[in-house]
Amino acid sequence: MRNKLNIGLFGFGVVGSGLYEVLNQSQLLDARITKIVVKDPSKKRSIPSDNFSFDGTEILDNNEINVVVELINDSSAAYEIVKKALQNGKHVVSANKKLIAEHLSELIELASENSVSFLYEAAVGGSIPIIRNLEEYYNNDSLSSIQGIVNGTTNYILTQSNDGIAYNEALKKAQELGFAEADPTLDVDGFDSKFKLVLLIKHAFGLTIDPKDLFNYGIRNIKPNDVAFAGEKGYRIKLFSRAEKLNDKVVGLVAPHFVSQDHFAYQVNNEFNAVVVEAVFSDKQLFIGKGAGSYPTASAVLSDISALQFDYKYEYKKTRKEDQLKFTEDFFLKVYIGSSFIEAINEIPFYRIDEVYQSENYNYQTGWVKFSEVSKFNLNHRPELSLIVLPEPFKSVKEFNAVRSESRHFVVEY
Amino acid sequence: MRNKLNIGLFGFGVVGSGLYEVLNQSQLLDARITKIVVKDPSKKRSIPSDNFSFDGTEILDNNEINVVVELINDSSAAYEIVKKALQNGKHVVSANKKLIAEHLSELIELASENSVSFLYEAAVGGSIPIIRNLEEYYNNDSLSSIQGIVNGTTNYILTQSNDGIAYNEALKKAQELGFAEADPTLDVDGFDSKFKLVLLIKHAFGLTIDPKDLFNYGIRNIKPNDVAFAGEKGYRIKLFSRAEKLNDKVVGLVAPHFVSQDHFAYQVNNEFNAVVVEAVFSDKQLFIGKGAGSYPTASAVLSDISALQFDYKYEYKKTRKEDQLKFTEDFFLKVYIGSSFIEAINEIPFYRIDEVYQSENYNYQTGWVKFSEVSKFNLNHRPELSLIVLPEPFKSVKEFNAVRSESRHFVVEY
Repeated sequence: MRNKLNIGLFGFGVVGSGLYEVLNQSQLLDARITKIVVKDPSKKRSIPSDNFSFDGTEILDNNEINVVVELINDSSAAYEIVKKALQNGKHVVSANKKLIAEHLSELIELASENSVSFLYEAAVGGSIPIIRNLEEYYNNDSLSSIQGIVNGTTNYILTQSNDGIAYNEALKKAQELGFAEADPTLDVDGFDSKFKLVLLIKHAFGLTIDPKDLFNYGIRNIKPNDVAFAGEKGYRIKLFSRAEKLNDKVVGLVAPHFVSQDHFAYQVNNEFNAVVVEAVFSDKQLFIGKGAGSYPTASAVLSDISALQFDYKYEYKKTRKEDQLKFTEDFFLKVYIGSSFIEAINEIPFYRIDEVYQSENYNYQTGWVKFSEVSKFNLNHRPELSLIVLPEPFKSVKEFNAVRSESRHFVVEY
Repeated sequence: MRNKLNIGLFGFGVVGSGLYEVLNQSQLLDARITKIVVKDPSKKRSIPSDNFSFDGTEILDNNEINVVVELINDSSAAYEIVKKALQNGKHVVSANKKLIAEHLSELIELASENSVSFLYEAAVGGSIPIIRNLEEYYNNDSLSSIQGIVNGTTNYILTQSNDGIAYNEALKKAQELGFAEADPTLDVDGFDSKFKLVLLIKHAFGLTIDPKDLFNYGIRNIKPNDVAFAGEKGYRIKLFSRAEKLNDKVVGLVAPHFVSQDHFAYQVNNEFNAVVVEAVFSDKQLFIGKGAGSYPTASAVLSDISALQFDYKYEYKKTRKEDQLKFTEDFFLKVYIGSSFIEAINEIPFYRIDEVYQSENYNYQTGWVKFSEVSKFNLNHRPELSLIVLPEPFKSVKEFNAVRSESRHFVVEY
């Protein structure tokens, strides 16, 4: 009853070559890589050169190949490959979150029109089967929130920071270890986490969000004073991709968060990824696995290939029409803003101030801000201040106004 | 495309009544409980008495009902209900691990003959979707090991013990909190963990093991001296349901284990459950969720019901013929044996001794034993000694003999 899979592979880096080994040198699956297309003909590789081609059409126009596995870095080239493969009636397995997040609706539609599967478990959370669980196990409206550490690079750097190592030094170490790219922008400014959040929101809540409409603020500006604040309060700093239902709306963001010792994420360090899912009835479930690296990615790709043997498809059961469940930035959250400059802190409109600290070189303020106002600041490019979300539940405008009027704290009028 | 589900519910305890609330008082699923059968007509309940019946045939012989959810304690009565329901062509959702483990082959066959689904996610790991993940995501032979804390009661007691509270006191506290039964045997002697391991082994490796053939040794005999030993070495004690591939065989057991700080399970305390899955390529993945209690169970039952809307069935893709992958007790493992009596320790045949400690009131010995010999001792009824597995990989007979001959430790000849 299993489908025989003839795979065309794009890319032969660590993931691709490991995958080749498992598929072609073991009996694990009835699936073989029959053609590999790579970019650079001159590179020395672990298997004989006659396995390789440099012309994509040798896979894309080959009728014997029914599965395309795309593992290349260049997301524009990957987009063309994936599109063409789906159009030509081939199943596609991809790990390229940027490509998928930016073209999600189009690619889902193409797969559906051509009656093929488009699977991308490896694009989010490394070896953690989070897309599959959201799709299959949490396949109804019971899900209330999802919160993930889905970028191994930044989690590694933050773990170093929490241990007292300065950001630049930690970044250098991550680069030496191969966890971070020479240009780390996609990781450290939260873009990678955002692309993954787009996929999580799609499978958790059925909403398709354009990455451009989703706020991403990374860890570049976190300073020793912010880490010291965390230490004093018993917190650690984690970069979360987070989305949840707030009454009848969905909210979501990528931003650094303080987490206390009783939070699941507190112990998730170094290159590990973790996702916490909360649903009606079930309290919280935590999934942990290795995020960065070739093995976790290869393992997720392998599981997708394995699922193709049984005709597995994402069904997007939760997909919403525009008028059903809406995404909003209109909510309140409690944050910490740290800076050497009081003026920088004062630029951020607070609706309630809980704590103020001022000294010659370091100031901070905690309290409640409106997300739609804060998200307008280009915070990745404001090195003089750091914003970190405090461990308080988000509040809808209505909830916040109700609490605010009872408050004995500073209340700021605008 | 979704099936309309008319549910007959057996049992109306905390799980059943919570389930009723979610299904009948919300629009979450297109599923309604149309009949509830309970045992005790005199009990006061949260909904009007005309919802209840005391005659099982009102569900089992009712053609309008297509799903039976069985949530009663009595596993013999539950067995009759489940069997009859499957025979009458109804899908069944059950949380009763004892019943399922003891009659697994028969019930799977009945479900298949009658073309209905038999789902039991709630029977293992509370709210953790572990059966579903083993079935769907790890749906090939890549899985190498599974290790779980799947009994919330014993994990709660062990957490207390690790904090210095004596076993009897910890048990009393667990009973007061409703985590442990008046007769705690099923939990503390590892039977509950064993029934769950039977299900894990079935879905992980495709083997059906009679619970009688699976070793279960619980936590009843763990003494303050054993806990002190753990503390000195930086370990905590956890009760594991554990199975893994050892070359071409499968091994499995329920026994207390020492875990070191870098082990995933070290931080899994109180009533939490956790399962670590290891597969080719993917390193380890950890699933954590609440184990004991009504909400986790109800959430898993809800997910099974939700899956029935889409005709979900376990496919048992990995199910083995007798001659393919065999279960064995022939392997070696490293253990600690503690006792007040040296004679008791000397009864256990060691093949290699690593450490010996002797004093007036407490003695221990660590080293390698053959599992098939140790499993013959009825350890739950040997209060004078405690056996705890040390953190070393299991070794096949061949591997052990190779290492043993090179060893500079005490080698014991038998």
